[in-house]
Amino acid sequence: MLRSHTCGELRLTDAGKSVTLSGWVQISRDFGGLTFVDLRDRYGITQLAFNMSTNAELCEQARKLNREFVVQVSGTVRERENKNPKIPTGDIEIIVDSIKVLNSAKTPPFTIEDETDGGDDLRMKYRYLDIRRAPVRESLLLRHRLAQETRKYLSDQEFIEVETPVLIKSTPEGARDFVVPSRMNAGQFYALPQSPQTFKQLLMVAGMDRYFQIVKCFRDEDLRADRQPEFTQIDCEMSFVERADILDMFEGLVRHLFKTVKGIDIGKLPHMSYADAAKYYGNDKPDTRFEMKFVELNDVVKNKGFKVFDDAELVVGICAKGAASYTRKQLDELTEFVKRPQLGATGLVYARYNADGTIKSSVDKFYNEDELKKWVAAFGAEPGDLMLILAGGIDKTRKALSELRLEMGTQLGLRDKNKFSCLWVIDFPLLEYNEEHNRWFAMHHPFTAPWPEDIAKLSNPAQFGEIRANAYDMVINGVEVGGGSIRIYDKALQAKMFETLGFTAEEAQAQFGFLMNAFEFGAPPHGGIAFGFDRLCSLFGGAESIRDFIAFPKNNSGRDVMIDSPSVIDDKQLKELNIKTTV
Amino acid sequence: MLRSHTCGELRLTDAGKSVTLSGWVQISRDFGGLTFVDLRDRYGITQLAFNMSTNAELCEQARKLNREFVVQVSGTVRERENKNPKIPTGDIEIIVDSIKVLNSAKTPPFTIEDETDGGDDLRMKYRYLDIRRAPVRESLLLRHRLAQETRKYLSDQEFIEVETPVLIKSTPEGARDFVVPSRMNAGQFYALPQSPQTFKQLLMVAGMDRYFQIVKCFRDEDLRADRQPEFTQIDCEMSFVERADILDMFEGLVRHLFKTVKGIDIGKLPHMSYADAAKYYGNDKPDTRFEMKFVELNDVVKNKGFKVFDDAELVVGICAKGAASYTRKQLDELTEFVKRPQLGATGLVYARYNADGTIKSSVDKFYNEDELKKWVAAFGAEPGDLMLILAGGIDKTRKALSELRLEMGTQLGLRDKNKFSCLWVIDFPLLEYNEEHNRWFAMHHPFTAPWPEDIAKLSNPAQFGEIRANAYDMVINGVEVGGGSIRIYDKALQAKMFETLGFTAEEAQAQFGFLMNAFEFGAPPHGGIAFGFDRLCSLFGGAESIRDFIAFPKNNSGRDVMIDSPSVIDDKQLKELNIKTTV
Repeated sequence: MLRSHTCGELRLTDAGKSVTLSGWVQISRDFGGLTFVDLRDRYGITQLAFNMSTNAELCEQARKLNREFVVQVSGTVRERENKNPKIPTGDIEIIVDSIKVLNSAKTPPFTIEDETDGGDDLRMKYRYLDIRRAPVRESLLLRHRLAQETRKYLSDQEFIEVETPVLIKSTPEGARDFVVPSRMNAGQFYALPQSPQTFKQLLMVAGMDRYFQIVKCFRDEDLRADRQPEFTQIDCEMSFVERADILDMFEGLVRHLFKTVKGIDIGKLPHMSYADAAKYYGNDKPDTRFEMKFVELNDVVKNKGFKVFDDAELVVGICAKGAASYTRKQLDELTEFVKRPQLGATGLVYARYNADGTIKSSVDKFYNEDELKKWVAAFGAEPGDLMLILAGGIDKTRKALSELRLEMGTQLGLRDKNKFSCLWVIDFPLLEYNEEHNRWFAMHHPFTAPWPEDIAKLSNPAQFGEIRANAYDMVINGVEVGGGSIRIYDKALQAKMFETLGFTAEEAQAQFGFLMNAFEFGAPPHGGIAFGFDRLCSLFGGAESIRDFIAFPKNNSGRDVMIDSPSVIDDKQLKELNIKTTV
Repeated sequence: MLRSHTCGELRLTDAGKSVTLSGWVQISRDFGGLTFVDLRDRYGITQLAFNMSTNAELCEQARKLNREFVVQVSGTVRERENKNPKIPTGDIEIIVDSIKVLNSAKTPPFTIEDETDGGDDLRMKYRYLDIRRAPVRESLLLRHRLAQETRKYLSDQEFIEVETPVLIKSTPEGARDFVVPSRMNAGQFYALPQSPQTFKQLLMVAGMDRYFQIVKCFRDEDLRADRQPEFTQIDCEMSFVERADILDMFEGLVRHLFKTVKGIDIGKLPHMSYADAAKYYGNDKPDTRFEMKFVELNDVVKNKGFKVFDDAELVVGICAKGAASYTRKQLDELTEFVKRPQLGATGLVYARYNADGTIKSSVDKFYNEDELKKWVAAFGAEPGDLMLILAGGIDKTRKALSELRLEMGTQLGLRDKNKFSCLWVIDFPLLEYNEEHNRWFAMHHPFTAPWPEDIAKLSNPAQFGEIRANAYDMVINGVEVGGGSIRIYDKALQAKMFETLGFTAEEAQAQFGFLMNAFEFGAPPHGGIAFGFDRLCSLFGGAESIRDFIAFPKNNSGRDVMIDSPSVIDDKQLKELNIKTTV
């Protein structure tokens, strides 16, 4: 090794030792007679000391070291005069005897510091420099720890990691596939997996009993912010289970990760039905770090002459604790917030329950103090609280209020990234109608089992919307980090499901025949879950974006700007693949 | 859970317990008054007992269970009368109270037994049934253990598992890439990685210090037996190292795997130079489970009037211990073996050193007993040994003798799959000349560092063949399981290397500019290795083929016959991707 120790290792107890360190020059500070160099590696920073009066030549050499030079130094550990309590090596420094420059460095295009001056594009282009910065490095280390602890927990629970193929078959159901032309099978294509769903189910048919994999998946979708064409799942499946077994097992996994990686005990996870999530939080991934539940007000506010409320399918509001002091300007901003096209509310009604006990609303014309007291009662409001109310069609109003609730949570400091609130959302609908395509789609995917008592409804299209899925999502801090279901394991039911989704029998057989046929040879009851690993990492890291938890992410056009990919390929290669480009 | 215990779990100490098991019917045996059913899951087999006289109805039910039915049974554990010492649960059986058929099964197309009657094609088509067989299941379990132990060892050594991208950039150097048309970047393509080589080097530039990944790689090559278009590597890289550090670290990994997974201590690994491997074993991956080293005989056999030897560039042989008793027929077969077109020897000379001390050769006409005694001395042969000699051009003769040596090792039972002989082969040539392409190629890859003292020879094409690479292969039982090198980390040297390989400066910049540019920003000395994980698994499993260590392998045409992939995709999809097929 070109070092005896790392730059994060030496302590006061090492004083007097002869050591060799290698690393990058973080900074060189020249104090006339003394020169200090901070030497950095993955493990930390160690101060190197050079004294002009005892070794002028070496000191001159040190002064010539630019930022990011790679050097190897030998010297003796000694106690520092000015200790730095902020770093673990802050008690010592190295009196250097010799320096060897292992590699020089051009001046980096941005500073290698926690808060860099580099913009996103520059950071991505020089990602190898960006990763030298502590926040990105720590994000990747966190990801490593989460992956290893995930494997440890699941292995201890008898799960077997099985690698499923990457070159598989394209299926039109679901998102768009990336495809790979096959040279040896002219005119044919592989597809990259959107998930190993069918393979993990086949592994259950194969008797593997408990499977997992931390696995790359691929979706050729138009990229929204923070969505990557390739992403990573913790993919799991178990046989001979019922829903409760899966929920236990995988909240166990998440509990293990929080305990070992963050030292937090998340306790037993609550269950919330999809219907309750919609009713009280307006979406299926409620941020339960804070209360501020929806209160439905139809019974309280209607028939008082206020047409907006009278005509609304739903009048629903939230009570923002302690926000009665919001100014008119702040309230106007909230109104603008809900009126944005994405939310599309027509307006926002508010009522301040002032600290002095008076109540002041934006609709005083229609509601007197007695009426407003009924509002207070409905919300359970206390003096100092602010009531915010929306009205309109059920789905749209809930969606808008959900966003407003999150905004208020943010404004009131209730969404602490170091606090974690986890729950299961259960009892999703099996099917949802898509107006655009004019047919029913599986809310999770076509392999999800309906509740046994709802199976009969699959014979009656009028009841499709009522069928409950044996599906579940794990939600943490308003983010869906994992989702899964008990699966269909009966060929006839699976065929019925495909029929419900508009497949002809031939189409179903051509695309998923291998799975349905497998069900005829002794398929066990089974179910599973998949966690979005990139998102889980960013959540653990307290970050909004998943980018810094991926070593080499792509931009919103699906490009890797560092290696400049995708790129054109030569005609010979295209010819061998029996394809032509049409641009 | 649909079970209280697995089918591999119950012991005599559990007698009297009420249990519920779920699994597959392995076999049902009807003995008149008694019916026994073997119930199987991943964990083992448990015998279920049904008694016609105590519960006729249940017994009748049991008799109707066909092979591979999935059933759940409840009952009581009791000691067996006829114990089966071959299985861990052999002391007990379950007196069944109730049966529930969870799923029926058609008769499988082949028997679910260790030795199946299914051929390869059928097994691949119904891979989910094939995996139910113990040998395949155990192979996948072994793979899981090897993966987890690899991660444990490397994590303990401060290696960080970093996921590198799968959608990267096509490069013409090396094997053929699989490519992926980009919908969002019309006319452009991603490529699937043949290895994460450049990314792991960038991670070293990024200061990650120690990286590993168990990662899928892809090569669109014409498939030979036992080569898969997608395969898995244990990919590793370290900074601030010299060769000895890497050899220590990774023989440590392999030692750990043998110790923890097989309970074998492989000790300290010997090093063998590429030149010695060629001279003594005729190839760069010698099977050192047995000696039978090459003995060069030019000095001994020439100028005795035997033209074949006199004209040969090299006369070289092996001494097969105890094989003097080989019959004429056996010797003729060996002659045929070396004369096959793949080996192309013109003939085989042998000399039997008989047990009675006499020596009898196939060239007695040219060599009398005194001359043959010189052969005996050269080989260090003993009475009872057989000397086998080939002659011709150096490379071809060594290659043929290498195959003959392996064949003799096999015939003499010297290649025990439960014995493991590991070594490092080092000091490979940096470059090898390719007659077909009329240029030099990197023997490992273009990123391998030459020995510092040989760098000057890169300026003189006449010396290209003499340049030694700082590269190393790990060889186990004649299989190259891993290979790597110390890397170039200097931009100028890397550019020189590309020039040597026939790249123009523009081509080098277009394809590998991102890496060479990275070297300008403070690249540390680094090196690494990659192990072929599929092959390592099969070696640990004592198998010739890697197929059963891959859950869902492809056939020699690159097809997955189970899911029937690759397949045609629809025109709409092609249009979105801006490509057309030309078939």
